[in-house]
Amino acid sequence: MGGRDGEAHEAGGQREVGGQANEAGGQAREAHKTHEAHISALRAVSAPARVAEPVEGISQEELALAARNHGLPLEALRYDLTPPGLHYVLVHYDIPDADADADDWTLTVGGRVRTPLSLDMTALRSFPPVTHRVTMECAGNGRARLTPRPVSQPWLVEAVGTADWTGVPLRTLLAEAGAEPDAVEAVFTGADHGVERGVEQDYQRSLPLEDATADDPEVLVAYEMNGAPLPPQHGHPLRLVVPGWYGMAHVKWLRDIALTSTPFTGFQQAVAYRYRQSPDDLGDPVTRISPRALMIPPGFPDFMSRTRVVRPGTIKLEGRAWSGHAPVTKVEVSTDDGESWQEAELPLPENPDGKDGRARWAWRTWRTTWRATPGTHVLSARATDAAGHSQPLTQPWNRGGFGNNLVQRIAVFCLPQGD
Amino acid sequence: MGGRDGEAHEAGGQREVGGQANEAGGQAREAHKTHEAHISALRAVSAPARVAEPVEGISQEELALAARNHGLPLEALRYDLTPPGLHYVLVHYDIPDADADADDWTLTVGGRVRTPLSLDMTALRSFPPVTHRVTMECAGNGRARLTPRPVSQPWLVEAVGTADWTGVPLRTLLAEAGAEPDAVEAVFTGADHGVERGVEQDYQRSLPLEDATADDPEVLVAYEMNGAPLPPQHGHPLRLVVPGWYGMAHVKWLRDIALTSTPFTGFQQAVAYRYRQSPDDLGDPVTRISPRALMIPPGFPDFMSRTRVVRPGTIKLEGRAWSGHAPVTKVEVSTDDGESWQEAELPLPENPDGKDGRARWAWRTWRTTWRATPGTHVLSARATDAAGHSQPLTQPWNRGGFGNNLVQRIAVFCLPQGD
Repeated sequence: MGGRDGEAHEAGGQREVGGQANEAGGQAREAHKTHEAHISALRAVSAPARVAEPVEGISQEELALAARNHGLPLEALRYDLTPPGLHYVLVHYDIPDADADADDWTLTVGGRVRTPLSLDMTALRSFPPVTHRVTMECAGNGRARLTPRPVSQPWLVEAVGTADWTGVPLRTLLAEAGAEPDAVEAVFTGADHGVERGVEQDYQRSLPLEDATADDPEVLVAYEMNGAPLPPQHGHPLRLVVPGWYGMAHVKWLRDIALTSTPFTGFQQAVAYRYRQSPDDLGDPVTRISPRALMIPPGFPDFMSRTRVVRPGTIKLEGRAWSGHAPVTKVEVSTDDGESWQEAELPLPENPDGKDGRARWAWRTWRTTWRATPGTHVLSARATDAAGHSQPLTQPWNRGGFGNNLVQRIAVFCLPQGD
Repeated sequence: MGGRDGEAHEAGGQREVGGQANEAGGQAREAHKTHEAHISALRAVSAPARVAEPVEGISQEELALAARNHGLPLEALRYDLTPPGLHYVLVHYDIPDADADADDWTLTVGGRVRTPLSLDMTALRSFPPVTHRVTMECAGNGRARLTPRPVSQPWLVEAVGTADWTGVPLRTLLAEAGAEPDAVEAVFTGADHGVERGVEQDYQRSLPLEDATADDPEVLVAYEMNGAPLPPQHGHPLRLVVPGWYGMAHVKWLRDIALTSTPFTGFQQAVAYRYRQSPDDLGDPVTRISPRALMIPPGFPDFMSRTRVVRPGTIKLEGRAWSGHAPVTKVEVSTDDGESWQEAELPLPENPDGKDGRARWAWRTWRTTWRATPGTHVLSARATDAAGHSQPLTQPWNRGGFGNNLVQRIAVFCLPQGD
């Protein structure tokens, strides 16, 4: 297979084992040799990033990820709030066995703070709870539609979902702990453990301190999803929720928050989740969600091709649109495969969190109508946000397959008249 | 693409449109011509069954199914009862928008009965509720591991889950309606609507009357899953549960039960879900679940390959085993890729439904230990049931890719000593 050359940078950004950001220096020579053997052994089963050959179909490895993780069935865009089990799920490693010890789950807050904290679930629930409705999307959504295709979790367009998340604002906890003046980032450690491109790790991500303590979006340490304890696959018993950011920032099975005086350079921050054009490109970090509109596929599907079938006449088209940069201000719809575009109606968003606009990080509804005529058609929707970001009409390619918000294309077959 | 030849039988078992088992004869010529045009139009977007070429990777069509439907992440075999959202899901067409009208959902019972019934949810809930713990598995589980690979929903081994289903025994409802002496089958119609190999249909399946009215397994018309209303993707508000049978029998979004005096020949009965060796083979019907054991993959995974990594030493191996024919009586485990097999321990099953053995249609736990040594290993588990059925060591191939219970193979890499 191609694409395995010149991957030193992507594969080797971090050599720590066990997910600790810092290891004590001065290891004994023997320990070091063992460590090197361990690293080299892991490399044998944990390949560098690669891009698929032009003729290569989806591999069994990608299929194994697709069979575990799942997207939102697009007809479920009909629900404001995604019902349990329909919200997209991406688990990097395994779902940790956290149910067994959820009662004595402890979140530690340390590093560059004046007062390190150790909070059990009772302590966390004693803070006034806050709920935000948030649309979450995987950074890799759209990856499998790219040419060439980066080999990883092969999403088409469906890696999205909207939930009400309840928990404690992160800024409340950080105020309690008191950031030292030299603190610049907060590093979040989850309990899921695995190896990725040769690097054994607990899943870890960081946020700049100004994002971690922001007012809007307000980051939550969440313990409820839609009014119930978090399901195992969504981080039970505790996860981060970072409204407006792609899913990789919302660390699940959250165990530890550490403030640091230097930017975090862990695998998921410095190696993965960067917009790179080539293996030696440092790339920009993946952060906020690019705008996207999705349509509820009209009519009914063919089982195998998922091609839609409709009868001639007026058909309601509707769906959802969102952006992590700014509110969506425009959705355009094409029923002729992008030849022409018409603006859809954007009903005023409901504010389930009240007057303060707390649902601004959730998707909004759009709708229009279409007069279907017999034959084949391709339908698309395209979102634009208040910051001027629009969905591209040509693929925004990068090596990791991140942020591909190329407009959705829905093949529709309209039956002959009169049946 | 190959495999599209000679598919007349598989594709054309039924020409009815709209999911009705019987259409009134004597259509006017014009209506007939329109109907034929409609059928031929649908054929254009709804291809016959096919088998993938040897070099062909998973297609985008198969991927679209894999991204919608999902399996049980194998670490979730740790839960006796599969948590919400982790139970496998296969939706043939779209999840119907049944939430909107769940309050006035009506189940009709008719055909060859003395007293046709029309039951709303309140009427159904007024019968004494019964709960059964049932392991459900998709008939297509294992399909993507077959060579050559039948092109359809590409499951590896994970299309399974166990739930407590609560509802009314079907035999109670049929006793209430009173079967006419000539009734031989019960036909179940769901609300999901689509086209498959050119046939537009509501999803329909039948059961022989003796299975529909059996005592053990007792078929349920279920309205709760794990003590809560059915989630949309599991049939909200009403589904059939047929303990011991593959998933295709458990009709979701159940609207109608019709007793018939002749065997049902609808698409999902006579065309799909048959064990065929060739397109012109009539094949045997797919019915009960073949035995299978699955192992919780030990250690931790590599993200991309899902290869497991363990450290040297004694490792607990455990998992679940089930059969729809008879209780599982033996699970053997191999740690050398099938060269040798040792019997695992089979703890006595718990009986969550009480003394009457109502959990006999749920999986049971097995466990053993393994002394891992550095290097690569392949682990497998193999179930045998009381009726003498065992998992095969070579693939049980058929054109639809049904019932492939070939033993699971888990690649494990054991790290060097001392790290």
